[in-house]
Amino acid sequence: MKPAERLAELNLHLPPIPKPGGVYKPVVVAGGMAYVSGHVSRGADGQLITGRVGGDLTLEQGRDAARQVGLAILAALQHELGTLNRVKRLVKSLGMVNAAPDFTQHPQVINGYSELMADVFGADHGVGARSAVGMGTLPSNVAVEIEAIFEVTA
Amino acid sequence: MKPAERLAELNLHLPPIPKPGGVYKPVVVAGGMAYVSGHVSRGADGQLITGRVGGDLTLEQGRDAARQVGLAILAALQHELGTLNRVKRLVKSLGMVNAAPDFTQHPQVINGYSELMADVFGADHGVGARSAVGMGTLPSNVAVEIEAIFEVTA
Amino acid sequence: MKPAERLAELNLHLPPIPKPGGVYKPVVVAGGMAYVSGHVSRGADGQLITGRVGGDLTLEQGRDAARQVGLAILAALQHELGTLNRVKRLVKSLGMVNAAPDFTQHPQVINGYSELMADVFGADHGVGARSAVGMGTLPSNVAVEIEAIFEVTA
Repeated sequence: MKPAERLAELNLHLPPIPKPGGVYKPVVVAGGMAYVSGHVSRGADGQLITGRVGGDLTLEQGRDAARQVGLAILAALQHELGTLNRVKRLVKSLGMVNAAPDFTQHPQVINGYSELMADVFGADHGVGARSAVGMGTLPSNVAVEIEAIFEVTA
Repeated sequence: MKPAERLAELNLHLPPIPKPGGVYKPVVVAGGMAYVSGHVSRGADGQLITGRVGGDLTLEQGRDAARQVGLAILAALQHELGTLNRVKRLVKSLGMVNAAPDFTQHPQVINGYSELMADVFGADHGVGARSAVGMGTLPSNVAVEIEAIFEVTA
Repeated sequence: MKPAERLAELNLHLPPIPKPGGVYKPVVVAGGMAYVSGHVSRGADGQLITGRVGGDLTLEQGRDAARQVGLAILAALQHELGTLNRVKRLVKSLGMVNAAPDFTQHPQVINGYSELMADVFGADHGVGARSAVGMGTLPSNVAVEIEAIFEVTA
């Protein structure tokens, strides 16, 4: 099943594309790869999901925030590429968690994003290389920010 | 107008290339991309710009520091490529801010770098994908460090 | 001398491949590049090397931790590629240090990894672009995590 069909089957609703909050493009395609800017966590209502995971937010809330980032990235890719069917595979992601000073479960947080990608693009093409780490601070105190590279067809 | 001409028109003076402070190359070209190492903030006098943005430094000082990193990256690219005219476009940047614990305006800081790139390479080719985030610490307590990928011609 | 021979000459013993601690692949090859997931510091006994460099751990212990990450990355590459001889060059690394709040010597820590890569792949092909920075937190409180991109042959 192709990603666009799979998206429909999963009944996923992609959020609107926010205006870039700085001098950058949400997605740049070059050399057969789509480079996706860091996307931040927003709820279904479009409001930022803020706070430190392991402090202000629970692990489960952090996972949900990471999943929301994934939906925003899918929306940005669909907008840039015309269709998600142009995605060949997820290549690499950098999952950045706004974590409390003693937090240690970053991979479990970013799994919320990674499981979504596996659902949409499949257990092979939807699973990429990844780092899941804790930042000192994130813009607007968002809970999660993720950037990624996808291989795409022309 | 080509980047090298635009650089002259803007009357920008590129700083000298510092000796790498570790076992790395400032720029590696592979697969049609120039991968640029993390460059750190130095003033026009070559001295490191240090301190936490939102604490030791104001937002405006952080922006200036980010712009200085941009000049250093242009210098490194010019040195490696022979001419900036080999740059096809800015693909992706990771802007890393040494931010105070409650700082939230990372995108505005990194815009100092991004606006320079847009000035030199143009509003399309000079604007790439980007993340702008806050680190726990940076080498020598520099205010800003940025790494980037540029698409280049052979 | 080819990397696999060099590895034997150096008498380096590569560690076993740990099971991924999340939804990701250790290495993804796409577009002529091997994208290597963030690998974390483990001792020769397989136990995680944890703690903040410049606090719980000395600079020298941090360097050793970074070298161990390098061995883990070599093991992952060898497993994915069949042989390290398919590596053309190290392109780029992001060295992430779990550093004490006042730590400033991140490049010296990550040199432990970079010197290993130079030993195995040579002073040209084994030295890539790099950033060496300090994170807020890392998974399981590991001392060092490094992700990298290598150019590979088909």
